[in-house]
Amino acid sequence: MAIVKVHGYPLSNATQRVLACLYEKDVEFEFVNIHLGAGEHKSETFLALNPFGQIPALEQGDLKLFESRAITQYIAQEYSDKGTHLLPVPGSNKTMALVQLWKEVETHQFEPPSTNLVRELCLKPFFGMTTDTAVVEENQGKLAKVLDVYEARLAQSKYLACEQFTLVDLHHLPNVQYLMRTEVKKLFDSRPHVSAWVADITARPAWSKVLDLQKPEQ
Amino acid sequence: MAIVKVHGYPLSNATQRVLACLYEKDVEFEFVNIHLGAGEHKSETFLALNPFGQIPALEQGDLKLFESRAITQYIAQEYSDKGTHLLPVPGSNKTMALVQLWKEVETHQFEPPSTNLVRELCLKPFFGMTTDTAVVEENQGKLAKVLDVYEARLAQSKYLACEQFTLVDLHHLPNVQYLMRTEVKKLFDSRPHVSAWVADITARPAWSKVLDLQKPEQ
Repeated sequence: MAIVKVHGYPLSNATQRVLACLYEKDVEFEFVNIHLGAGEHKSETFLALNPFGQIPALEQGDLKLFESRAITQYIAQEYSDKGTHLLPVPGSNKTMALVQLWKEVETHQFEPPSTNLVRELCLKPFFGMTTDTAVVEENQGKLAKVLDVYEARLAQSKYLACEQFTLVDLHHLPNVQYLMRTEVKKLFDSRPHVSAWVADITARPAWSKVLDLQKPEQ
Repeated sequence: MAIVKVHGYPLSNATQRVLACLYEKDVEFEFVNIHLGAGEHKSETFLALNPFGQIPALEQGDLKLFESRAITQYIAQEYSDKGTHLLPVPGSNKTMALVQLWKEVETHQFEPPSTNLVRELCLKPFFGMTTDTAVVEENQGKLAKVLDVYEARLAQSKYLACEQFTLVDLHHLPNVQYLMRTEVKKLFDSRPHVSAWVADITARPAWSKVLDLQKPEQ
């Protein structure tokens, strides 16, 4: 089978989702660093991989994919017998429906406020820009409501979709990890089931490998 | 098999996605009208179906689902041998990956600007509120760029994911239909492949049934 090539940037949350999935599945890959500052994601070469000009993109022979959650789904299915099972086993339609449901919850409920908070509290300071405290406050309020639902769910189920770690939990990792370094950490810490879930998913060896890629080369 | 109950509101685009899917699959269902004006979606009964208090929700015996795109995926798989095939047949991992990819494109690229335009140009006037022309202009610009990518894609492929009508195309129907009644129609009409695709998908008999539900009772 042709080698998997991932085009992305180690600090990008969407890129991290794909890398975490590849490490969980123990799939060898080649990483192509896309220099966003140099506008490489808007180059003709990159637009041939993703016409929307956004990272990450995956190439495997003739197959060209983009959208991080479509890529993780492909990897989980294509390499179903390798590494960690990231989809329920056995996967009845009803269990799979719960995976789909909580994947959509991550996309529509968790991602918007958490990405806004990562931008304001991590990326803007990193690039010397000023944090907008009104945006932080508004999105902390939204995230708190989402985490109330997660707390109730995780009181009933070890992971969000089912008793097994799945793509759903994995998709949360990048923003959760970023927010653990900010004042927003308290929203996770103050909810015991959410807090235990965060400790569990961020301790996964595959995730440590993703974090290692962010360290400056020695 | 237990009867499918859909809790929703006929004018809601997310509800329409689920109804279009049920009609395509020829699955009998009971429709429970949720009166948003009366706050029924925030009632204890409804929150037991969807803790985020958003329509639609689906009930089938013990199974309780929410998030419209998770519901359509469940229906397409659970009733794979009934009505229209809404997932590729045969469904290799690579074809399924393209379906996932274009589903994510609808969610992340098409939905945000199109939903903003539906709100400004359809819902606000309907409820006697004032349209924000700056928001309309900004989102028309974003939607035009998305439709440029769609035009190139639909020049190569009859439908967005593959040669067959799938959930991807179906998920676009509600917002496309709303925008056909507005000035934004010109963005679709001016792109020949997009225009032919719109004519094709909006002419589907299952979609006419969804539109019929919006008509006031005689």
